[in-house]
Amino acid sequence: MTNIDEMSINAIRVLSADAIQKANSGHPGLPLGTAPTAYELWTNHMNYNPADPKWENRDRFVLSGGHGSMLLYSLFHLLGIGNLSLDDVKNFRQMGSKTPGHPEYGHTVGVEATTGPLGQGMAMAVGMAMAEAHLASVFNKDGYNVVDHYTYVLGGDGCMMEGISSECFSLAGTLGLSKLIVFYDSNNISIEGSTDIAFTENVMKRFEAFGFQTIEVADGNDIEAIGKAIEEAKADKERPSLIKVNTLIGYGCPAKQGKASAHGEPLGIDNVAALKENLNWPCKGDFEVPQEVYDHYKEIAARMAEPEKEWNKLFAEYCEKFPEMKELWDKYYNGCDMSDLFNSEEYLAKPEKAEATRSSSGTILNMIKNLMPNLIGGSADLAPSNKTNMKDAGDFSKENYAGTNLHFGVREQAMAAIGNGLALHGGLRPFVATFFVFSDYTKPMARLTSLMKLPVVYVFTHDSIGVGEDGPTHEPIEQLAAFRSMPDFTVFRPCDRTETALAWEYAIESKDEPTALVLTRQNLPQMAGSSKEALKGAYILEDSDKETPDGIIIASGSEVNLAVSAKAELKNAGIDVRVVSMPSMDVFEKQSDEYKESVLPKSVRKRVAVEALSDFGWYRYVGLDGKVICMKTFGASGPANQLFEHFGFTVENVVNTVKSLF
Amino acid sequence: MTNIDEMSINAIRVLSADAIQKANSGHPGLPLGTAPTAYELWTNHMNYNPADPKWENRDRFVLSGGHGSMLLYSLFHLLGIGNLSLDDVKNFRQMGSKTPGHPEYGHTVGVEATTGPLGQGMAMAVGMAMAEAHLASVFNKDGYNVVDHYTYVLGGDGCMMEGISSECFSLAGTLGLSKLIVFYDSNNISIEGSTDIAFTENVMKRFEAFGFQTIEVADGNDIEAIGKAIEEAKADKERPSLIKVNTLIGYGCPAKQGKASAHGEPLGIDNVAALKENLNWPCKGDFEVPQEVYDHYKEIAARMAEPEKEWNKLFAEYCEKFPEMKELWDKYYNGCDMSDLFNSEEYLAKPEKAEATRSSSGTILNMIKNLMPNLIGGSADLAPSNKTNMKDAGDFSKENYAGTNLHFGVREQAMAAIGNGLALHGGLRPFVATFFVFSDYTKPMARLTSLMKLPVVYVFTHDSIGVGEDGPTHEPIEQLAAFRSMPDFTVFRPCDRTETALAWEYAIESKDEPTALVLTRQNLPQMAGSSKEALKGAYILEDSDKETPDGIIIASGSEVNLAVSAKAELKNAGIDVRVVSMPSMDVFEKQSDEYKESVLPKSVRKRVAVEALSDFGWYRYVGLDGKVICMKTFGASGPANQLFEHFGFTVENVVNTVKSLF
Repeated sequence: MTNIDEMSINAIRVLSADAIQKANSGHPGLPLGTAPTAYELWTNHMNYNPADPKWENRDRFVLSGGHGSMLLYSLFHLLGIGNLSLDDVKNFRQMGSKTPGHPEYGHTVGVEATTGPLGQGMAMAVGMAMAEAHLASVFNKDGYNVVDHYTYVLGGDGCMMEGISSECFSLAGTLGLSKLIVFYDSNNISIEGSTDIAFTENVMKRFEAFGFQTIEVADGNDIEAIGKAIEEAKADKERPSLIKVNTLIGYGCPAKQGKASAHGEPLGIDNVAALKENLNWPCKGDFEVPQEVYDHYKEIAARMAEPEKEWNKLFAEYCEKFPEMKELWDKYYNGCDMSDLFNSEEYLAKPEKAEATRSSSGTILNMIKNLMPNLIGGSADLAPSNKTNMKDAGDFSKENYAGTNLHFGVREQAMAAIGNGLALHGGLRPFVATFFVFSDYTKPMARLTSLMKLPVVYVFTHDSIGVGEDGPTHEPIEQLAAFRSMPDFTVFRPCDRTETALAWEYAIESKDEPTALVLTRQNLPQMAGSSKEALKGAYILEDSDKETPDGIIIASGSEVNLAVSAKAELKNAGIDVRVVSMPSMDVFEKQSDEYKESVLPKSVRKRVAVEALSDFGWYRYVGLDGKVICMKTFGASGPANQLFEHFGFTVENVVNTVKSLF
Repeated sequence: MTNIDEMSINAIRVLSADAIQKANSGHPGLPLGTAPTAYELWTNHMNYNPADPKWENRDRFVLSGGHGSMLLYSLFHLLGIGNLSLDDVKNFRQMGSKTPGHPEYGHTVGVEATTGPLGQGMAMAVGMAMAEAHLASVFNKDGYNVVDHYTYVLGGDGCMMEGISSECFSLAGTLGLSKLIVFYDSNNISIEGSTDIAFTENVMKRFEAFGFQTIEVADGNDIEAIGKAIEEAKADKERPSLIKVNTLIGYGCPAKQGKASAHGEPLGIDNVAALKENLNWPCKGDFEVPQEVYDHYKEIAARMAEPEKEWNKLFAEYCEKFPEMKELWDKYYNGCDMSDLFNSEEYLAKPEKAEATRSSSGTILNMIKNLMPNLIGGSADLAPSNKTNMKDAGDFSKENYAGTNLHFGVREQAMAAIGNGLALHGGLRPFVATFFVFSDYTKPMARLTSLMKLPVVYVFTHDSIGVGEDGPTHEPIEQLAAFRSMPDFTVFRPCDRTETALAWEYAIESKDEPTALVLTRQNLPQMAGSSKEALKGAYILEDSDKETPDGIIIASGSEVNLAVSAKAELKNAGIDVRVVSMPSMDVFEKQSDEYKESVLPKSVRKRVAVEALSDFGWYRYVGLDGKVICMKTFGASGPANQLFEHFGFTVENVVNTVKSLF
């Protein structure tokens, strides 16, 4: 290692230590320990142009150990990525800065994924590698490897302990994602102390079991060894690779290195000084970096700009030679115009018969797929039940990366994170699916989807006690509340084919928000009154004849029919109510106050909401004077129609509840 | 295998097929494939008395593949466990029957854990094995192994794909839980087809990496081989064991065996007949079992009753010889009387200074531990942050099973399921802990805690934007809604030391419900008005001087202080409000209508709720006319005090919001 290399590596360490000290908050351990790995990877192997962080064919790097964000920020600053300035670095962890505590996609240029919850970055990287494999198989022609990049991800013991890492790497091995390279920062330290306390497994062997190539770097300060390991990893064209790098957490700071306290607290002023002295750092002041280091990084950045120029030439030739591929490329990367479909009569055609909304969804999904080649997704081993199979779209596998039906296996967490990774990569529109009750497993990942503003579609079927005989472990009750209460995440619970089609339209047209479709297992009748108004989240399905209704029944999904039937009976009893279908609280809340008032006039206080799940959240619409017919307990095992009756989802009960308000 | 063995095994198969066929719903694949394994284990190795399913020293068997419930029900019926009758079997999957679709703890005698969501049973079994190891180390004396039993768990590919299995088995290997024996039903089939699609990892190698002994049974019909494997597993006194049993899903039914369709749908009437013929089943009619099979099982059951008799003698001697241990045993198994502590002045003593409620919790936890030796628990690698370390209580490890501080590593899912397993085992009072934002990971397991009515305590700290610089990935917004909306699960968000102590009291006194404590990272002032009334979920902290308050401010946790300060300012402006502290919506909802009306009189409509998380669920208390000061978006990275101000959690904003209602 040359002197300039050493100083360039230490610049990462010193900037990290200074920034964390100034913020009096942060995690110095990872940056100090893995600075050599990051330096070697980025300056010697990453196919990346610091001047163009959006270049489609760049290698991706994900910092799964997101708490080590200063590693990224230091590097970005030194390499000039996104013009991250020294002031930005000094503002680490301050409100509004470009250097928040954990890396935030869309907030800081160069960040490929928001990380923080350990392990998720690993699975997002798997998604990115799957995206690359798929796009390469779709677009590459002989002599024109226009899609050809690696996905690197770095994390530590925490990421490896999280179950999601086993899920995603078992899948990665099965899929033979040879351009996925995982760096395991092995420092034997966790927050509660040595990893001996809780984590003595043989990680390398676990990865071998997954079908990975495994390489070990004995000394995390040896950039030559790290470089060799990366080359060895890239040379394996069959398997993903794990590079285990043995590091000392907090390396360079004598009082802290190797200790748990190096992980998540500032080193302390004296220790920062000791670090600089120990590393022979030539500068005295905080945030001071020698000009020669800046110059060195600038040279590197200039060199790194070359491959994109080559690629631009190649891509230009490719577009000339294969204009139909260019057209397809634009569809993938710029989006397909779906308005013809969404405005067509066929799209909103009401079927004759009753139909489960999961079946409606399957039909609509396939209609959309016909026009949207880059729609890609699947289920956590429930595709036949979720009705998410796309006909003739092929099954994504090691033998056929061109397939767009993804088979995640029974791995809901990895599935959702992979969905994020596919979206983050660019060029694809992913969806994921499982039983609604298992949406709980996807929640931590769905939260990141929202934070990152990714338009991933979540298909959740078997949405209530309509599940029937499988019983309470499979019957959602509180899952709607969990997803509705998440910011920037839209939930639709449609009542029939029309509303389902519109939910899909909303989901597909979304540019910056995930959408969940909550669908039934059981058949539902088609509602005559359902219409495009559903795109407003709630609308008058059947109005009262009076100017001011006597009361309002609000329902969603499978309970809309009950509301409509109850209205008819109540009319006979002299009570003239309005029926509002509310497929999406989230979308309704975005409407104007005027619209909301027109649907739910404040003066009308006699309101009943009906939904076969928890009442949690419904009081916003029924207030202190209204009532909610809902599930107050978990469900039960038995035929669905008996359960609906047993738990009070009957026309009679709706009628009586409304009457009780008068 | 003798003829009677073969018929006894086939009785399980036939009853399962018939029950599923009659219900026209269910999963025949697992029972058909694993009947020999279950038969061999239960009749030749399980230390279990069918006449006494609650015997403390019984071996435990968990069916992690809960969809295969008919395997259990057939066995229970044949062995006479819980007097499960043939009618019960015929009522499989019918409302109110003792044979629901997935096994339900507390509902059907003999079921050790509610299962259904794949993988959770595996982790619960790890918890049970940890419980056995701990109790053995506490109670056993030379010559008196009063705690000495095995934990067996059975699951298939689905369980092995779920991340939770890697989490719990990595921990089990680290802890050297040698009395845990895992049966892996390997049939290469999942719902979407062959496991080749998504799951080609080397499972045995993964388990070796975890530190398991691994044994393979080539033919799942060979009960001698299965028996040998079990003996081999038991002989290893250092490591947990995995027994991989190669089976054919749906074995015995020619048209279905080995196919994905054998997994989750009834075989069909013709196929059931073909099954019986293929197995040389001597009976024609549905649910018919030869008397000799019943007799054979009866003999076995009688034989199985003997070990408990021996144990009773041993235990009686033990109690005589070690009366202090008997006293301790009773504390463990019958509970400790905590009233002295909970009624003491010390318990509710208000500290002088401000204190983070996570710190209050740490203090209270240790007070409780002093009187409650069987309080056992820990954090997913965040004990120093969660403040859950119990002083001088030892660290549970392979070298010291007597420790009650558990170190789960970064494995929230396994932690929560292990908490369930510890509770299910009996004799222990477990708690688990992590950052509140990561409560999302524990949610699928917390749901089972509620379903099973287990009084597990969930300690969740760092509960809002009070997290500060770590930023939005670490700042809870919607997590309160997710847990509050779950049936039979109590959430407390206390505002100071007093309310925290009462939350712990509620949690500890609970017999049949889990409780979550949602606690702050940052210091909170002690509220003069906080009192035992907090045990009602909500109470008047500071009342208006008027008989009918002008308005009501409702707050919880860190926002209560804002409400109190706002009240004082509003008084000066001529508005006399009541301040209600609502540490627990769940508990408040259980109070009488009179009490609820006294705290929140319906006539008072001018209400403002303040909580630094989502408003979802608050409208139940503020109605159509009130307002909620809440988080409408995700948080941000920055110093906490700046975030609270930025997002509107200021006295000024509360005052203005109240005023806006007038």
